[in-house]
Amino acid sequence: MTTLPPSDKALVPFVSVDHMMRLIHHIGVEEMMRGIAEYIEADFRRWENFDKTPRVASHSPVGVIELMPTSDGELYGFKYVNGHPKNTREGLQTVTAFGLLASVETGYPVLLSEMTMLTALRTAATSAMVAKYLAPEGAHTMAMIGNGAQSEFQTLAMKAICGLKTVRLYDIDPTATAKAARNLASQGIEVVSCNSPEEAIEGAQILTTCTADKQYATILTDNMVGSGVHINAIGGDCPGKTELAAAILHRSDIFVEYPPQTRIEGEIQQLAPDHPVIEMWQVIAGKVPGRTSDRQITLFDSVGFAIEDFSALRYVRDQLMTTGFYHALDLLADPDDPRDLFGMLQRAAPVVA
Amino acid sequence: MTTLPPSDKALVPFVSVDHMMRLIHHIGVEEMMRGIAEYIEADFRRWENFDKTPRVASHSPVGVIELMPTSDGELYGFKYVNGHPKNTREGLQTVTAFGLLASVETGYPVLLSEMTMLTALRTAATSAMVAKYLAPEGAHTMAMIGNGAQSEFQTLAMKAICGLKTVRLYDIDPTATAKAARNLASQGIEVVSCNSPEEAIEGAQILTTCTADKQYATILTDNMVGSGVHINAIGGDCPGKTELAAAILHRSDIFVEYPPQTRIEGEIQQLAPDHPVIEMWQVIAGKVPGRTSDRQITLFDSVGFAIEDFSALRYVRDQLMTTGFYHALDLLADPDDPRDLFGMLQRAAPVVA
Repeated sequence: MTTLPPSDKALVPFVSVDHMMRLIHHIGVEEMMRGIAEYIEADFRRWENFDKTPRVASHSPVGVIELMPTSDGELYGFKYVNGHPKNTREGLQTVTAFGLLASVETGYPVLLSEMTMLTALRTAATSAMVAKYLAPEGAHTMAMIGNGAQSEFQTLAMKAICGLKTVRLYDIDPTATAKAARNLASQGIEVVSCNSPEEAIEGAQILTTCTADKQYATILTDNMVGSGVHINAIGGDCPGKTELAAAILHRSDIFVEYPPQTRIEGEIQQLAPDHPVIEMWQVIAGKVPGRTSDRQITLFDSVGFAIEDFSALRYVRDQLMTTGFYHALDLLADPDDPRDLFGMLQRAAPVVA
Repeated sequence: MTTLPPSDKALVPFVSVDHMMRLIHHIGVEEMMRGIAEYIEADFRRWENFDKTPRVASHSPVGVIELMPTSDGELYGFKYVNGHPKNTREGLQTVTAFGLLASVETGYPVLLSEMTMLTALRTAATSAMVAKYLAPEGAHTMAMIGNGAQSEFQTLAMKAICGLKTVRLYDIDPTATAKAARNLASQGIEVVSCNSPEEAIEGAQILTTCTADKQYATILTDNMVGSGVHINAIGGDCPGKTELAAAILHRSDIFVEYPPQTRIEGEIQQLAPDHPVIEMWQVIAGKVPGRTSDRQITLFDSVGFAIEDFSALRYVRDQLMTTGFYHALDLLADPDDPRDLFGMLQRAAPVVA
């Protein structure tokens, strides 16, 4: 008997890197980040419905491998993600990721997807969705300090969602700035390459920091931050890695995703464990105010949370049937009789000629 | 510019259900379980080298979805597995699973594999590997109570690894027994179908229980278990699910995988939390004795542990290069310049004709 094709139940839609890039081009990168931001906003609004667990991390001297699970009671999702800063020296990505959605009702996976690209989009979409609530009215210029893999996505998400007109780029490595400027040249936004962080923040209402070194660094010093700005701090995202002078934190109202995680991983690891923070979901749900004055410094201490990945995977899943950018993966054994796994194996035996 | 094929670094070997079944037939099911048992035995022997975490479980009223991670410092592995007893009524598997191995050095995945089939093999391989240490000398007959998806694998692993000659089948559902008897008919082992658990245990030195209902059941009562036998209890594997009368536990020396997990999920959830148990890895490492007398009742209270999955994935990975039963999955974005994810995306833009 020859091997029968696997049944529908056994097949899991899989979005490869190639399919993800096709999907992004099909939808448009800005439109897709706008769509993902809407899903994230909707999921933040129903924050209390989610199972929230801190990441499950496996640390080694050179990096970390994490699983980030969550569930809303209907869907279960998790992301696999590594963080290996030394990888770039070997021509590898610091961060790679993939993710999965499953049905809570059956436990069967319903989507497996690359998430290196998708995480870049969801991180930028989250920043811009938050800036929509916290940035000062009419903000049009962003300083983008750190011009690595996330910088173009941050810029275009702020353009698509917050109406950003100008980005001022700075990186300690001028080739990174040149790379970002080149990539953003034809994207309908004014790009100014700067030679110092001080130059980058001139006239900017939004200050985004996104640098990569795993250390306590001071990318922004206290005297650089004037009143009324919104700080979007992306790069301080693991224990021992921060980007802002502590004095800035003391002058800011601090907004976070999930306090138990941010206190370990975010900028606020520099502060007392009971330093007041505002949960971003409460702002979005209308339970607490966001920005309350045009002199206030707002700080989004972003570390990335499992619900944002869940939202991004939900968004991708909802595009699959209309776009077809996936293929079916034979991931699950599905015998006709569930008690007869061995019979399924026997029937798949090669024919002896 | 057209899309370039993904680089080697971006490709993860993937073993589908179809490839797994081909691999099993290529190696032979008994030989493969013997090989997996050797890998499990080797990993139990170096138990102290492993990161051990309890499973990360997401419970719902109808089932559970779990992630089971572990690492030996060189490789990281995890299994995704669900448990939904009501699934069989809908023509779905109670348990489906897949797993992953990654390099601790880079965080990059090195193997993605179906694990529904593979879990069946590793569960049976573990039982037989343990029975090799604990079953009475010259054991030749096993009672197999519960004739579901695991029963044929248990039987053949005991044949391959412990020299089992006869299996005595019993299930509350006679069609399950008929299915198992049919599947085992030409496997070189004597098969006796029985009409009661009492009949099944006649003359058996190994008593294997593997039933599926999620409840406190009594598959074996105290008076059924004579001295000198080895009990291989597979089915008591989650909170609220046990198969043995507590009195049997009190007469037995109890061997477990990982006490913190077994006390929650195993037969010993019926006992006091400080009831003495023996860690199986210590027997295998020669630190404590296994069976010490031919009157002793030994009980392997098996719940399935992450290291067994890790061992099975290691085994599969080591067969890939010589057998070729995998295909390369485009799971990881791998830009030429790790800082230039956006440039990679732009270069993948479809050509406008």
